[in-house]
Amino acid sequence: MKYRFKVKNIGLSTGGIKVAVLSPEDAKEMDVWAKDRLLIHKDGKTLTTIVDIDVEGKFVKKGTIGFFYEVSKLLKTKDRDTVSVEPTGVPKSITYIRKKMDGGTLSEEEINEIIDDIIHDELSEGETSAFITSVYIRGLNTKETVALTNAIVHSGPTLKLKKEIILDKHCIGGVPGNRTTMLIVPMVVAAGGIMPKTSSRAITSPAGTADTMEVLAPVDLSVDEIKEVVNKVGGCIVWGGGSGIAAADDKLIQIRHPLRLDPEGVMIASILAKKKAVGATHVLIDIPIGKGAKILTRKKAQDLSRKLIHIGAELGMRVHCIITPGDHPIGNAIGPALEARQTLEILSGEKKVAELRKKAIIMAGLLLELGGLAEKGKGAKLAERMLSSGKALEKFREIIEAQGGNPNIKPEDIPLGDKRVTIKAEEGGRIFAINNKIIASIARAAGAPRDKGAGVYLYVEKGDKIRKGDKVMTIFAESERKLDAALEIYENNNPIELTEIVLEEYSPEITEVE
Amino acid sequence: MKYRFKVKNIGLSTGGIKVAVLSPEDAKEMDVWAKDRLLIHKDGKTLTTIVDIDVEGKFVKKGTIGFFYEVSKLLKTKDRDTVSVEPTGVPKSITYIRKKMDGGTLSEEEINEIIDDIIHDELSEGETSAFITSVYIRGLNTKETVALTNAIVHSGPTLKLKKEIILDKHCIGGVPGNRTTMLIVPMVVAAGGIMPKTSSRAITSPAGTADTMEVLAPVDLSVDEIKEVVNKVGGCIVWGGGSGIAAADDKLIQIRHPLRLDPEGVMIASILAKKKAVGATHVLIDIPIGKGAKILTRKKAQDLSRKLIHIGAELGMRVHCIITPGDHPIGNAIGPALEARQTLEILSGEKKVAELRKKAIIMAGLLLELGGLAEKGKGAKLAERMLSSGKALEKFREIIEAQGGNPNIKPEDIPLGDKRVTIKAEEGGRIFAINNKIIASIARAAGAPRDKGAGVYLYVEKGDKIRKGDKVMTIFAESERKLDAALEIYENNNPIELTEIVLEEYSPEITEVE
Repeated sequence: MKYRFKVKNIGLSTGGIKVAVLSPEDAKEMDVWAKDRLLIHKDGKTLTTIVDIDVEGKFVKKGTIGFFYEVSKLLKTKDRDTVSVEPTGVPKSITYIRKKMDGGTLSEEEINEIIDDIIHDELSEGETSAFITSVYIRGLNTKETVALTNAIVHSGPTLKLKKEIILDKHCIGGVPGNRTTMLIVPMVVAAGGIMPKTSSRAITSPAGTADTMEVLAPVDLSVDEIKEVVNKVGGCIVWGGGSGIAAADDKLIQIRHPLRLDPEGVMIASILAKKKAVGATHVLIDIPIGKGAKILTRKKAQDLSRKLIHIGAELGMRVHCIITPGDHPIGNAIGPALEARQTLEILSGEKKVAELRKKAIIMAGLLLELGGLAEKGKGAKLAERMLSSGKALEKFREIIEAQGGNPNIKPEDIPLGDKRVTIKAEEGGRIFAINNKIIASIARAAGAPRDKGAGVYLYVEKGDKIRKGDKVMTIFAESERKLDAALEIYENNNPIELTEIVLEEYSPEITEVE
Repeated sequence: MKYRFKVKNIGLSTGGIKVAVLSPEDAKEMDVWAKDRLLIHKDGKTLTTIVDIDVEGKFVKKGTIGFFYEVSKLLKTKDRDTVSVEPTGVPKSITYIRKKMDGGTLSEEEINEIIDDIIHDELSEGETSAFITSVYIRGLNTKETVALTNAIVHSGPTLKLKKEIILDKHCIGGVPGNRTTMLIVPMVVAAGGIMPKTSSRAITSPAGTADTMEVLAPVDLSVDEIKEVVNKVGGCIVWGGGSGIAAADDKLIQIRHPLRLDPEGVMIASILAKKKAVGATHVLIDIPIGKGAKILTRKKAQDLSRKLIHIGAELGMRVHCIITPGDHPIGNAIGPALEARQTLEILSGEKKVAELRKKAIIMAGLLLELGGLAEKGKGAKLAERMLSSGKALEKFREIIEAQGGNPNIKPEDIPLGDKRVTIKAEEGGRIFAINNKIIASIARAAGAPRDKGAGVYLYVEKGDKIRKGDKVMTIFAESERKLDAALEIYENNNPIELTEIVLEEYSPEITEVE
């Protein structure tokens, strides 16, 4: 049955979901409930909207339908326009979400339908949350994960390079300062590899690779621009979100975040879709483990490796995983400008930064072996040669230039936040642990990644012996207020733990109390 | 860190959740994300709100915070007021929801915290959906269900009658016309039982007991009024939602509905909480089963019975369950006015309506036995005597009067919709099935329960032999439009199936095609 309504444009955006608001009287009359669907007909156009009810009766009166910005925009409505409104069923994808909830296995078509509805904002917040929760609890089998990956790949454009072997890498994340990509891509490409690398921006971390590369060159390239850059110089380091590649992934990340959920199946699909979409044939995945990293135990990392390899193979990609220590920051610099400086310093040989440099060489070497550019066991040597000969730096400058940045930039040209505090050791000892999460919080409170010059520079590494008064770290910020906030986090927590001499202490009094 | 903002009151209600809207720039600056929490300080008051981000930048500008109606009302804000805003952590209940998601068992305190946050609208739609989904998949054990029941009981006022034995009943629902309560309460109370019955309004059905009783008397009584009525006449039939009893239950129903989820643990807690809150000591629960009923199989009904009895015992109530056939409507009348008329007719002996009358007598009898008012096996006889002697009708009239209705009302005084169509059989045969869901849809499309006089009157029962031209049903409506809508549902579906003579037919041509 169709009903006629006068339109009231609310002007407010839901962030994507197409919501129409009814008065409680009209909702009763039409026998519709919150989250039911209404077809809105206007000037030959039809749009499916989700119902909200103005319970307090503060906004729409009987006979008026309220449209959130998304609906007004698509139907081009003016206030007091007349529209025809018709209750309709909920999308089929709701049935499929129920199926997953009940422990069923979803077909490729069913997964496509759900992802399609999520991308096009056809599901309410509660419905999408029910899907993510169900997938988190019930899991996805191989076929489902492959289908989800393909659905994400086909949600955006794909990169088609006419190359036989295309290399790619990914890091599961959670480790501050672990900026290997900007070292690996130049080494691999300098040795003849093809590497169209797309990276993410930081979500909860103080800097993503895209945020850091952006200090040196534009990263917001279209698929055609990426193609041009890679065909010209052999590789790139761009922001995946800018190109629209694997578009559904961005949407899924936004949904995962509010609930702090990251179901394994969705994570695997998200990683592999971004590789598949750029046409990667060989992929190296770094899985850091330990306290403060995203994956806590070696057992879980092993299990994840097997799944990534298996599902990668189903998608026609050779996946190689390495498990690395992730319980402490890698490299000294945390924050976009600091990390960009450090990248240039390592590539130019000005600074060693032992662990980060070594890790990048090993990973670049593995990629060269995977791609057939080096014999088994000889990749790291070749990668190291690219680095020490300056060829990797030269390649990096070519990439910066091809993406539209200044190829002649020197580390000291990169501005750092001018509000600074250097923290010194209050006692001496050996560094037992550097807490990833606290360091990340300090850098974030200081303004990273938004304030490019903000962050933390560490003078010490895990295992170092320090004496009272030694410099431990410098916090950089672009405003006094943020510097104070970062310092407050430092003072209320203890990011750097020294090896304890005495672990616990007992005396008769304490024992008595127990 | 605190930030200062100018207020913009949006005027629109979310339906309860306290939402504050930030511009993307301010959200970035403050490092907050959609669904994070903000403390809003104004004039010594502090309120926790959930963040929404005005992604399209259409509503709030940098430096302005938008308040939905709920926030504006609680903080009494005017446009351009200044407030102090401080990011804060998400509620503890989110951690407990994660625990349930991961398969953990929740403590009483944890369940209380979640229910408290749901009642006070502290969780976002996605967060509450994640809780309901997790409970649906993971289930609740006995202790958790007891804790949930108690949390619901304590979410509203409770009825304290100084009586040793208090009887109550409940029906799991899904069967149109199954209006036993309005017959059982008068019989039981006439025989000396105490029965403070609270009922629900229809959600997806054409009539709830509260909707039907409302045709005869006010049902929206406070706890004090209920107490007065029961102390005076021994029983009542009121709307549970009006008294605030088990207030959280109403909230939970609203959340369950959009996703069409009704997790067993929540259902059990919801049923038993409403009994516990009125002080019931002995409870009879009717579980109709079969196609179109809420519980499909006998196995599931048996399992549910065991759980209801077990959890009831933990709560100090003696629960008795009966499993009944629920694959067809019980009684002839579907719709508030039609069912109210039928109730008076059965109580006055004017009409037999065999199945409904018999079912009510059996159930009243069981309650009398449970409450020690009749010997084992003799309850039904006593109940039948109350009915045929007119004592039940007399008691019903006392209840109507005590609740504020007209005790002298006669069936024919109750107005029915004057737009009517009577449907006649197009062929003869034996009635094999009457489809609950289609009958309910017809009654609902005709306007029930909102239009009290709308509904369906059935002239036939399952198993009846009918001839072509016999009356099958009359549809009643209060408007032509709704009558047409109801007729359309009748014509596009087939609520009444005759026993088939030929089930399938094969011929060589058909076989060849296959």
